[in-house]
Amino acid sequence: MFLSPAEIAQVRERFGTPCYVYDETLLEASARRALAFPNAFGLTLRYAMKANPNPAILRLFRDLGLHVDASSEWEVTRALRAGFPPETIQLTSQAPAKGLADLVTRGVHINACSLHQLESFGRTVPGGSLSVRINPGLGSGATNRTNTGGPAASFGIWHEYLGRVRETASKHGLRIRRLHTHIGSGSDPAVWKRVARMSLDIAAELPEVETLNLGGGFKVARVESEHTTDLDDIGAHVRQEFLDFRARTGRMLRLEIEPGTYLVANAGVVVATCIDIADTGAEGYVFAKLDAGMPEVTRPAMYGAQHPIAVVADGRPRADVVFVGPCCESGDVLTPAPGDPEGLAPRSVPRPAIGDAVVIGGAGAYCAAMATINYNSYPQAPEIMRRRDGTLDLVRRRQTLDEMLGSLVGESAS
Amino acid sequence: MFLSPAEIAQVRERFGTPCYVYDETLLEASARRALAFPNAFGLTLRYAMKANPNPAILRLFRDLGLHVDASSEWEVTRALRAGFPPETIQLTSQAPAKGLADLVTRGVHINACSLHQLESFGRTVPGGSLSVRINPGLGSGATNRTNTGGPAASFGIWHEYLGRVRETASKHGLRIRRLHTHIGSGSDPAVWKRVARMSLDIAAELPEVETLNLGGGFKVARVESEHTTDLDDIGAHVRQEFLDFRARTGRMLRLEIEPGTYLVANAGVVVATCIDIADTGAEGYVFAKLDAGMPEVTRPAMYGAQHPIAVVADGRPRADVVFVGPCCESGDVLTPAPGDPEGLAPRSVPRPAIGDAVVIGGAGAYCAAMATINYNSYPQAPEIMRRRDGTLDLVRRRQTLDEMLGSLVGESAS
Repeated sequence: MFLSPAEIAQVRERFGTPCYVYDETLLEASARRALAFPNAFGLTLRYAMKANPNPAILRLFRDLGLHVDASSEWEVTRALRAGFPPETIQLTSQAPAKGLADLVTRGVHINACSLHQLESFGRTVPGGSLSVRINPGLGSGATNRTNTGGPAASFGIWHEYLGRVRETASKHGLRIRRLHTHIGSGSDPAVWKRVARMSLDIAAELPEVETLNLGGGFKVARVESEHTTDLDDIGAHVRQEFLDFRARTGRMLRLEIEPGTYLVANAGVVVATCIDIADTGAEGYVFAKLDAGMPEVTRPAMYGAQHPIAVVADGRPRADVVFVGPCCESGDVLTPAPGDPEGLAPRSVPRPAIGDAVVIGGAGAYCAAMATINYNSYPQAPEIMRRRDGTLDLVRRRQTLDEMLGSLVGESAS
Repeated sequence: MFLSPAEIAQVRERFGTPCYVYDETLLEASARRALAFPNAFGLTLRYAMKANPNPAILRLFRDLGLHVDASSEWEVTRALRAGFPPETIQLTSQAPAKGLADLVTRGVHINACSLHQLESFGRTVPGGSLSVRINPGLGSGATNRTNTGGPAASFGIWHEYLGRVRETASKHGLRIRRLHTHIGSGSDPAVWKRVARMSLDIAAELPEVETLNLGGGFKVARVESEHTTDLDDIGAHVRQEFLDFRARTGRMLRLEIEPGTYLVANAGVVVATCIDIADTGAEGYVFAKLDAGMPEVTRPAMYGAQHPIAVVADGRPRADVVFVGPCCESGDVLTPAPGDPEGLAPRSVPRPAIGDAVVIGGAGAYCAAMATINYNSYPQAPEIMRRRDGTLDLVRRRQTLDEMLGSLVGESAS
């Protein structure tokens, strides 16, 4: 919640609401913290750009020396457009690359995420070098929603199939120089230690691997009850595993980590306006309706995710308020019970009035990038970058009606 | 699943995948079923266009005599562009209308959904006629997600505030000609009977009301384990309540219903391609990765919603398969456990192979309209209308990269 009341007023006046605002200083600070991740034999910090592919953020991270992980060929194109050199881009996609030969020619790193992808790579680029993504069989979270590893995850090649990986590599003369085992490890150092050990055990069977990418999933606290990952603590454990691996094998592996949320979540907010207040009687709830909701911040409706919400109304008496978005959709609730999109969890805030500015925090990751855009036909919200000097730069315009409808056949562009 | 294998092949060849296909014949059939809803003193069928605002669907329903309910002023504009006469459009929005005076002048019906909206209407259009949305205090579902009535819902004016409604109306000389009590009543005739009675009790206190809109929420079975609402059964109960109301009060109220899902859900599919097959060992799962997922059909990831999935591969041996989408996102699962997006529920299908066509059914409602568009930077999928004569008409083009990035400042359009 990095904006001052005066800046919030300026955002509303210049850009209208709802409107995303990102903060360059906070983005840089989180990147520098991640760049300091302890390591034994070198570190590459790779931004998982699916969290927020706005080019202003991509360019900032590029200038700070970050590399990028792209989840689709479209994201590769966006990273290239933002000026990332091809050799700093890795494609880690569930979808086999249609333009594989061209990507490899340009120097983009391919992370083969399935046996099929590995085989396709071998046929297309015999003798080539690549990364393989292995599912080490460990899931990090309590639920499928945070598990990108374990038997319930479709990501990567199941660890029992390492023999097939080696056969395919051998058949096509491939060199597996990089190993990727992103399971979304979260914030528990014990999990990181365990996944590092399991991943290194896999690396031991892939003798040409020089770099181990342990992925990301570093959690950050958006609200007080949550816990931000201690990178130093985790890094120290991981570093020790890499040192032990050298002691066992003589091999010095480079470490890659691949955060998304950690780098951007708390460097973004949505500035909104309270458009109505309603209540359901003495035994009911007070609702503040905002002009921002599911179409901008879908995580609460989808996951029961918690985002801080600030009402810009100093000195107003407090009330317990449920915040909802502008959609005719019962799920368009910004304050669900934690982890339970079905439940309502009122927040104690200065009682909002119609016209108040309301700021939704923790909106840098998986908000603009993963939202039910245009639901109820609301146009996609603009994005603003607050520069280090305080300048507010428009980095994405508000979508126009013609842009929203432009691909509809027979719609006049008037 | 209305497409023949030959048509599916034609869709893939002409339009590529993923691709929505709607069926004019099925759309018309569901509209005609709803138009036959039993009633005592006349019926208006109002399409809740937020379910799917594609203009080809809007025009079809317009030609069949349906009216429309718009959830935002943007939807009003879309309905007008699709040729709905203003007087057939009702605006039922959480957001107070910015262009209220203009809408009223044009003849659009305003459904005041809060005391604030009612007061604004009174100030803007003193002496005018309108509808009010009342929350009758009854929720229909087991969860907030399907409840648009009851104390946990922010929709409409709480029923205990009817006195304030009358005061505000009186102050501004307003005539409340229409009453709206959409609680998302579902498929249980007993609930419909109860909500009809409660709504009529409210109408009894609003003597100028001529039309009662009971909303929608009619469930349809997308998969075998689900149950499609019996409109005749519900309608018979509702009709009797209207007859009883006349007996008590002498007033003959017109009925409106406002379905969305019921009209379009099973008249739409997504044609996809199987892009990879993976498994997690003997104790794990078989996954079929599709090029369609969360960005086209978000309901499974959000609600654990069930959509039928057909693999076009006759004679192939069956297997239990988990279908996932193309996103690097653990939640991008098309076959979650019913009502539980965290769980996986494999489907018994002809074992898919890479390149197979796979059709996701029940995708007419809240799919193209409510999706995490552009997540992982996949472009918005095209929409096709299968006409009554079998012609496949493109009604929305596939989004281009330039369209996806067009509002980003500093992105070159090339």
